[in-house]
Amino acid sequence: MAYELHYWPTIQGRGEFVRLALEDAGARYRDVARGSEVEGGGEAALMARMAKPARPPFAPPFLVDGDLVIGQTANILLHLGPLGLAPEDEADRLWINQIQLTIADLVFEAHETHHPISVAETYETQKPEARRRAEAFRRQRIPKFLAWFEAILKAQGDDAWLLGGQVSYADLSLFQVVEGLTYAFPNAMATIIAKAPAVAALADRVRVRPNIALYLASPRRTPFSEEGIFRHYPELDE
Amino acid sequence: MAYELHYWPTIQGRGEFVRLALEDAGARYRDVARGSEVEGGGEAALMARMAKPARPPFAPPFLVDGDLVIGQTANILLHLGPLGLAPEDEADRLWINQIQLTIADLVFEAHETHHPISVAETYETQKPEARRRAEAFRRQRIPKFLAWFEAILKAQGDDAWLLGGQVSYADLSLFQVVEGLTYAFPNAMATIIAKAPAVAALADRVRVRPNIALYLASPRRTPFSEEGIFRHYPELDE
Repeated sequence: MAYELHYWPTIQGRGEFVRLALEDAGARYRDVARGSEVEGGGEAALMARMAKPARPPFAPPFLVDGDLVIGQTANILLHLGPLGLAPEDEADRLWINQIQLTIADLVFEAHETHHPISVAETYETQKPEARRRAEAFRRQRIPKFLAWFEAILKAQGDDAWLLGGQVSYADLSLFQVVEGLTYAFPNAMATIIAKAPAVAALADRVRVRPNIALYLASPRRTPFSEEGIFRHYPELDE
Repeated sequence: MAYELHYWPTIQGRGEFVRLALEDAGARYRDVARGSEVEGGGEAALMARMAKPARPPFAPPFLVDGDLVIGQTANILLHLGPLGLAPEDEADRLWINQIQLTIADLVFEAHETHHPISVAETYETQKPEARRRAEAFRRQRIPKFLAWFEAILKAQGDDAWLLGGQVSYADLSLFQVVEGLTYAFPNAMATIIAKAPAVAALADRVRVRPNIALYLASPRRTPFSEEGIFRHYPELDE
């Protein structure tokens, strides 16, 4: 049976980390809110699913796998182990989950750069604060996170994945973060990524994986935009 | 062999979610950075452990269990399943992990109320922004999160844990969040918690669990303070 992915239909957002794993693995899935309402899709279907009382997710993305409804991006990826993108060894699984949760922290901080005060208000209402937060994020936080990924990769040797010889969903997520940060902060990232060559090389290797390359060239890959998590506001990248 | 918990010695912080699980289970553990340097403890021991190149944690807390070094709070708790505070069924494990990750999101947002601009600067440098962020957090975010926990508990019936009949580490974490939010925002929480009676009742039941009650009365329980995640600044609770 195909997986059902539930996420906002017009943005990459956190759903994209799940999409990349499903696409790379060639898994059958239905991107529910992107479907037509006559076929039981659309945002209405997502909202209806969220409103069911048994074990409701707090927010999208969530994945429906038979009777299971699973929320939280890192938790969905943990469940998708059978796709072949997670190690079988328990210590390795914990390590990849740890990396994924650290990527989630970085994604959270990336979001806060344009919404440092309130998610319920628009970016325009919090621009001066966003400017200050983005500066701290560019100068201190991105370099700190990328240095950690770089150290992990360097300890593994040339052309390594985060786990060494075996690709995992965390590699796909790290690629997505590099893409997103480069979209949002092209000036800052030009300097930062030069100091993280192993991270840049990993992103390049993910980009040309056959199923990922097909996906990125397909209409299923929504472009980055100023509705998503990674937003390009030139004034936040000066 | 005893677990080694590594966390900053003078605050509860994220380490407290792990401590509560270890204490409730009566597990043997060493709180390394709180130990004396002559016995191989102290912050120096924490820093030395973090600096080891193989699979370094991004930040404390992290747990050392034999050869394993495990970072990220929710990941540590996932690993502590054998303590008897995690369900054995895979669907239940994913559900508790999902709840724990949502608690982590709430904790993150609680931290941002006093540091909306930069973690590298003091609260005093970002007070006006903190005031605005705290207002949005009190008015919209805490009620939204607590309503979700409340709905989960109500669906289970009276005196339920998050999983129904079986206590889990997520219940201990939810207790800690209620304690922390009540410390930080006593005015706001008086109103909010009145609308989440099942959450309040759960926190009360956790507080009197024998090992938790012993722990809370012991010197091992550090008081909340303005160095931790949950901080009481009266101007953020007006």
